[in-house]
Amino acid sequence: MDDIEIDEVATPALDDPVLIEGLPGVGHVGKLAAEHLLEEFDGELVRRVYATEFPPQVNVDDEGVAELTCAEFHAVETDGSDLLVLTGDHQAASNDGHYQLTDAFLDVAEEFGAKRAFALGGVPTGELVEEYTVLGAVSDGALIEELEAADVEFRPDEPAGGIVGVSGLVLGLGGRRGFEAACLMGETSGYLVDPKSARAVLESLETLLDFDVDYATLEDRAEEMEEVIGKIREMQEGPSAADDELRYIG
Amino acid sequence: MDDIEIDEVATPALDDPVLIEGLPGVGHVGKLAAEHLLEEFDGELVRRVYATEFPPQVNVDDEGVAELTCAEFHAVETDGSDLLVLTGDHQAASNDGHYQLTDAFLDVAEEFGAKRAFALGGVPTGELVEEYTVLGAVSDGALIEELEAADVEFRPDEPAGGIVGVSGLVLGLGGRRGFEAACLMGETSGYLVDPKSARAVLESLETLLDFDVDYATLEDRAEEMEEVIGKIREMQEGPSAADDELRYIG
Amino acid sequence: MDDIEIDEVATPALDDPVLIEGLPGVGHVGKLAAEHLLEEFDGELVRRVYATEFPPQVNVDDEGVAELTCAEFHAVETDGSDLLVLTGDHQAASNDGHYQLTDAFLDVAEEFGAKRAFALGGVPTGELVEEYTVLGAVSDGALIEELEAADVEFRPDEPAGGIVGVSGLVLGLGGRRGFEAACLMGETSGYLVDPKSARAVLESLETLLDFDVDYATLEDRAEEMEEVIGKIREMQEGPSAADDELRYIG
Amino acid sequence: MDDIEIDEVATPALDDPVLIEGLPGVGHVGKLAAEHLLEEFDGELVRRVYATEFPPQVNVDDEGVAELTCAEFHAVETDGSDLLVLTGDHQAASNDGHYQLTDAFLDVAEEFGAKRAFALGGVPTGELVEEYTVLGAVSDGALIEELEAADVEFRPDEPAGGIVGVSGLVLGLGGRRGFEAACLMGETSGYLVDPKSARAVLESLETLLDFDVDYATLEDRAEEMEEVIGKIREMQEGPSAADDELRYIG
Repeated sequence: MDDIEIDEVATPALDDPVLIEGLPGVGHVGKLAAEHLLEEFDGELVRRVYATEFPPQVNVDDEGVAELTCAEFHAVETDGSDLLVLTGDHQAASNDGHYQLTDAFLDVAEEFGAKRAFALGGVPTGELVEEYTVLGAVSDGALIEELEAADVEFRPDEPAGGIVGVSGLVLGLGGRRGFEAACLMGETSGYLVDPKSARAVLESLETLLDFDVDYATLEDRAEEMEEVIGKIREMQEGPSAADDELRYIG
Repeated sequence: MDDIEIDEVATPALDDPVLIEGLPGVGHVGKLAAEHLLEEFDGELVRRVYATEFPPQVNVDDEGVAELTCAEFHAVETDGSDLLVLTGDHQAASNDGHYQLTDAFLDVAEEFGAKRAFALGGVPTGELVEEYTVLGAVSDGALIEELEAADVEFRPDEPAGGIVGVSGLVLGLGGRRGFEAACLMGETSGYLVDPKSARAVLESLETLLDFDVDYATLEDRAEEMEEVIGKIREMQEGPSAADDELRYIG
Repeated sequence: MDDIEIDEVATPALDDPVLIEGLPGVGHVGKLAAEHLLEEFDGELVRRVYATEFPPQVNVDDEGVAELTCAEFHAVETDGSDLLVLTGDHQAASNDGHYQLTDAFLDVAEEFGAKRAFALGGVPTGELVEEYTVLGAVSDGALIEELEAADVEFRPDEPAGGIVGVSGLVLGLGGRRGFEAACLMGETSGYLVDPKSARAVLESLETLLDFDVDYATLEDRAEEMEEVIGKIREMQEGPSAADDELRYIG
Repeated sequence: MDDIEIDEVATPALDDPVLIEGLPGVGHVGKLAAEHLLEEFDGELVRRVYATEFPPQVNVDDEGVAELTCAEFHAVETDGSDLLVLTGDHQAASNDGHYQLTDAFLDVAEEFGAKRAFALGGVPTGELVEEYTVLGAVSDGALIEELEAADVEFRPDEPAGGIVGVSGLVLGLGGRRGFEAACLMGETSGYLVDPKSARAVLESLETLLDFDVDYATLEDRAEEMEEVIGKIREMQEGPSAADDELRYIG
């Protein structure tokens, strides 16, 4: 097997599509957001990307059929922009692998004619979030104004540790290739899978790409998480303790 | 040395052979099962596969002669199907290595004309197993019926963490190449080498491939393990404690 | 992306420039020293070096614009020698990566005509340093006399563990290529970012390369660190405890 | 830099030389033994082997001159056989690196006409050793008799965990290339640098290769280690405690 192999499943004509990246990361914010788009808009699977940097693993579906682990691109037609949504269960295993994979992802996006890219993710605050701010970073300063109009906040030198993984490289490598790339990062505790943060990110994206999406199923998941948080708080007898001692729960 | 080197030891003509993979894994179930086939049917060594992904290691035999670590294929003629049995002491060291090695293993299997593959392994339950269920996963849904008839059970989305290592890739890469591939996973505690689970797996395989094998030596090993478990239980004064605190014993 | 990509930003003519390497390391001594030169002499960015060995990361600037992580060369004209100053936020991730990166750095230095190289760094003493000695090591014994005249001390077989990372390879690979290479290592506790040690290193460099630099800003940083140390000492009730229990503070 | 680079320092004509490998390992037995040969017989440096698998490191000599880390071959003329002695401070960093390095080492040995190879090392017993047995393993059973005549002991399937690292591969890869290769492993606690074990290994080698060597300096080092062990025993109030609780001391 080559380091990266791309299966062409379908190649529909898309109208100026926008790459939306939602691989696993902090609070699974990007992954939740991207998967919500696929559920609400009935995306069409167009590419599978296999990589020897992914774990040597198959996942078993509800029938017992095994599927080699991969990242997937779905074409999504919204009432606004066409989207090319990238999801999956894994990032790369090495520094070099992240660079090679992101290059391959950007190749696919270019093949479909995408010139813009949004990397979705979370930014950890270390405490439970009350108000879900979406933080932004861009490959080109000219994009800032449009994002600020969609309630994306820019703070000097934040996030302090930079943006790591495929999301970071969608900006870094994408920018070097001429993509107009932005990262939308929902604030999230960092301890919990966070559907509310995913909703905040999607709301900014709705404004930017001029589509409408329903949030009922994300809200159901958010309520489930609220119950989990409630139980943890009870177990720890008091909300202040909960803030200090929460562990990651997925 | 190349990344992978294959020594041709013998190339007997085999009649529609079936690849049986039994490398080390959970409870050593796959390895025990594959080695039991070799012992009972007097397999003939046909290929040695060396790989720079294996540990830089030689094993010393009973005379003092060192042998470079490798995986081995044996040709096995049973009263039913011909088998091509893959055994060894190691999996690969990296993600990429797992992919390259499994590709090389499938190349050998194709060279001998194999079109079907069974990856044997264990699935950890976290507690001592009373009844040895064999769980299945397949590369193609059309195989399920035949396996269910051989007492292999299919449970939606299980094993939950997917199937990892060479066994997983025999399904994942094998399926992509057109092999009819299945994984037979014996339930096992995950703490102990488990000859009983290996027997359960082999019993399903007997039905599927229409051969008969004697289990006397596997049962001897199972009894030895029972004694080990008995002693641990005594040491821990009571069977409930044993369940909680067992460590891996090989 | 290639393993290493070098962006040519500018190629000013430099007069017999000297490579100054100041990547992150013990006490950030080398990095502080190199960055101080850039601040004081208004260096001109001439090369950016990207590498798939660096973390898959972008850093976000004060406007919100993301920049792919890289190492940078600045051309610096002092009142004495011309300098080619190498700075960055990362070393390589693997043994092999260190060798490839340092080779690329030396290629750039050769392109600008550099024949001499100084690797700046710290050498850990394990205790708070009162008097800041600068330890030296060279690619060629003929360089020792000149360095000793600049208050650089040579001690047999020190540092005991050798010199590791890009600094070590600037000597090792640089020497093999014909560079006159030296490493200037400021003694430092190893627990704290150490602007005073960086100053000691720069003072030797001033003598060696015949330039003058102001230390006001480095001294400000040193005073901040002194306050931090003072607070730690108070918290630990007594200076002797502080020596034993300091942790790394950056 | 290439993955492996070999500097030709000298190419004296050697008479049927024997490769002696003594890289770092258990109890530093092999390294001590090989370095003792170099000291006693005034070896001539013939090759330096650099590798990007070695740490990115220079060592500083007693003058302050830095030397890129490497493995070295010395030609040694004894009163018996000519030797090609391989020493160094490091093994490789990865599985693959061990294979590539050992291949390069065997290339050098072949270039000098070596057909026989002895890998020197230690085998850990887990307790302080009173009588220093030398355990053997060979690439070819025909070598056993000669080794047994030199007081080398062969025990079925020992060492149990196989032989790991360059020593193992000198047998494994060397044997595959047609070298007559043997590993001589001195029993050693595994907790201490063990000059006595190194002497036991050399005494067998003397018989095998028909040379005589003086052990005065090795005995001095052994006495130093005895003092260290004595002090540890005192600190632990009694010899039985010492046996149980010794840690590695180099």
